[in-house]
Amino acid sequence: MNAEIIAVGSELLTPARIDTNSLWLTARLNELGVEVLRKTIVGDDRNLLAQAVASALDRVPLLLITGGLGPTEDDVTREAVAQALRRRLLFSEEILAGIEERFRRLGRTMAPNNRRQAFLLEGAMPLPNPHGTAPGQWIDLPSGIVMLLPGPPRELEPMFTNHCLPLLRERLPQAFIRTRFFRVAGMGESDLDNRIAPIYRAYSNPVTTILAAEGDVQIHLRARAASEQEAEALVEELGAKILAELGDRVYSTDGSPLEAVIGRELASRGETLAVAESCTAGMLGARITEVPGSSAWFAGGYIVYGTAMKTRLLGVDPALVAQHGVVSEAVAVAMAESARDRTGATYALSITGEAGPEPSTPGIEPGTVWIGLATPGSASARLYRFPAGRERVRRWAVQNALYQLWRSLLESRAG
Amino acid sequence: MNAEIIAVGSELLTPARIDTNSLWLTARLNELGVEVLRKTIVGDDRNLLAQAVASALDRVPLLLITGGLGPTEDDVTREAVAQALRRRLLFSEEILAGIEERFRRLGRTMAPNNRRQAFLLEGAMPLPNPHGTAPGQWIDLPSGIVMLLPGPPRELEPMFTNHCLPLLRERLPQAFIRTRFFRVAGMGESDLDNRIAPIYRAYSNPVTTILAAEGDVQIHLRARAASEQEAEALVEELGAKILAELGDRVYSTDGSPLEAVIGRELASRGETLAVAESCTAGMLGARITEVPGSSAWFAGGYIVYGTAMKTRLLGVDPALVAQHGVVSEAVAVAMAESARDRTGATYALSITGEAGPEPSTPGIEPGTVWIGLATPGSASARLYRFPAGRERVRRWAVQNALYQLWRSLLESRAG
Repeated sequence: MNAEIIAVGSELLTPARIDTNSLWLTARLNELGVEVLRKTIVGDDRNLLAQAVASALDRVPLLLITGGLGPTEDDVTREAVAQALRRRLLFSEEILAGIEERFRRLGRTMAPNNRRQAFLLEGAMPLPNPHGTAPGQWIDLPSGIVMLLPGPPRELEPMFTNHCLPLLRERLPQAFIRTRFFRVAGMGESDLDNRIAPIYRAYSNPVTTILAAEGDVQIHLRARAASEQEAEALVEELGAKILAELGDRVYSTDGSPLEAVIGRELASRGETLAVAESCTAGMLGARITEVPGSSAWFAGGYIVYGTAMKTRLLGVDPALVAQHGVVSEAVAVAMAESARDRTGATYALSITGEAGPEPSTPGIEPGTVWIGLATPGSASARLYRFPAGRERVRRWAVQNALYQLWRSLLESRAG
Repeated sequence: MNAEIIAVGSELLTPARIDTNSLWLTARLNELGVEVLRKTIVGDDRNLLAQAVASALDRVPLLLITGGLGPTEDDVTREAVAQALRRRLLFSEEILAGIEERFRRLGRTMAPNNRRQAFLLEGAMPLPNPHGTAPGQWIDLPSGIVMLLPGPPRELEPMFTNHCLPLLRERLPQAFIRTRFFRVAGMGESDLDNRIAPIYRAYSNPVTTILAAEGDVQIHLRARAASEQEAEALVEELGAKILAELGDRVYSTDGSPLEAVIGRELASRGETLAVAESCTAGMLGARITEVPGSSAWFAGGYIVYGTAMKTRLLGVDPALVAQHGVVSEAVAVAMAESARDRTGATYALSITGEAGPEPSTPGIEPGTVWIGLATPGSASARLYRFPAGRERVRRWAVQNALYQLWRSLLESRAG
């Protein structure tokens, strides 16, 4: 089955606000086997919204509308849907009583405006909203379903989960969905696609989606079938072929990010990690510690942004810097070794590079980064040349530092 | 004048990807006095896209379409617009030559697929794309304008700036836009709004927009008038009233973020900054160094995530930690003082707190953060209690650390 989502609100048509409800709703709909064919964002304009509602219902049997259920004149969703469906709005004493009760409980007086929220479309079922004043509305049409949902995520999400999902499950043709979620590092999106497209293109079910961020590629598989076993068999068959092709480039089969996978490995070994960051200036440490509980395996380290700090905080020999330059293999190795020594961690990663936008080191192109790794037995560094863009270079450097450590952990596990 | 934006791409209908190009384009269009009335996101389906294009052109005279200009069968924007406008697609030898030349320059062979990108709509003007293979297209219609723009932001943005903006300025009715952009720290969005709503509500022109992120509130004013002087006078009048109300809570009147404002102040004084981060583990350093050229005033510092590291790297007395706990005023002050001493920087900020989600320090609620500041004459720390959420606590801590330094710089300037 296909759906469309309409997000209502003039603030969503400004440069600084984005509709994120539709991402959450899309995930829930996909889990039911429903595809979203179009998303529309319209302002608080009754006629434009009514037109958008009517034309969406010409295309799909399932329409979700978010926002515009508030108490003010700007909130026109109820009126617009009534206009589009040619249905009346009926005042509900019961809903009004619920809204008044909510205000009483909060020790506040209901504004007269809130009466607007007690109007229900003819034939609509109200959807309770314990987190706000506006109830949602569910309308069964001869040709489909329309849902009116509140805009704030903390009102919308429980309402959808507790009331819309059970109703949808009843009305949708029985279908079971099984998914796989692989994450891959150390290869670009197009290299990856070249290798696995011949495999997944042979399947229309599961559906394969590939998403790429800096140095990190995600592969999503979603199979749909009439039974759970059948869906599982479909996703397992394609998943196994992709895993066989990519081998240990797949660092995660449960969606965990690279830093969490590394954390689990270090924790299981009782080992620890430190960092010494120049151009990333803390981004690596910040990303590692996004993992709750990372203090079990992450010690800390050094932000040595200025050249003088590399000597002052890490004791890197100024003669080494003078001879090789600050963005060099020798300095990356020295930074990693010193960070490992001084923190007492099992491993240390170092990053020294030129993030740009302007070259600040003579002879070093922006995008040039050396990443060092010190382990109990060795210290080495690798050279990377990332595409331009200050923040992009820094994010690529962090991802590749983590991947360099992960490869080393895999090798020592194999050895 | 009114516009609509259509973003094309099935990946934009998955739970994990969002159309951000439209935010950037909306900002540019608003600057020209153009309002965006609707945004639509459609998948790679020629018929659905053609339908969306035709109905948008029934509503507005200006239509921007992003994405779907790639070389593969999935890229259907050219065909769909041709279908909607009932125009032919004409093969351009000149564009093909340009694409082939680009591949030669990169030392690669052009795939046969890329020939698709050399088709131009009848009557369209090609828009050069130095950052990718697909040229954009500009089509003047009797009733309006259609633009076909590439999906990747680093291709779209320069193309729009260099080619579309000048053409739009020629064709739009003369209207002058003047804006003000204030940034405020140290107060929440609703406190701020309570103070300035009585002022800005009296004006429908300029339009006032308020946006809030963690501890940082932005106020945008946009005035529109028939002359530059008139627009400037409108925005100046309201801007002056808001500034008078908020005083030095407004840290920036040109849109610069707090770290850039601090950087300018430090650079002008010839002073420097260091950090010692516990629960933020590098986020403060990473944010500071988003400012290009920050090495002139940012030294670096310490990531002391584990408790042992506070002693090992910064020399914080273990007895102090034992007596006061690791999340305490005494430890925050000791961290800041030691980071200042050891780096030789003029100022040092320290952060020690409990980010959560689970409490790891007995008696310390997640969200509790001490932020320390050492200056040439003093060292002190302030206690914060941020709302729950690990990443939110960490971002609030970084913002408030910067604000704490900024207040201190302002006071020393006043003194």
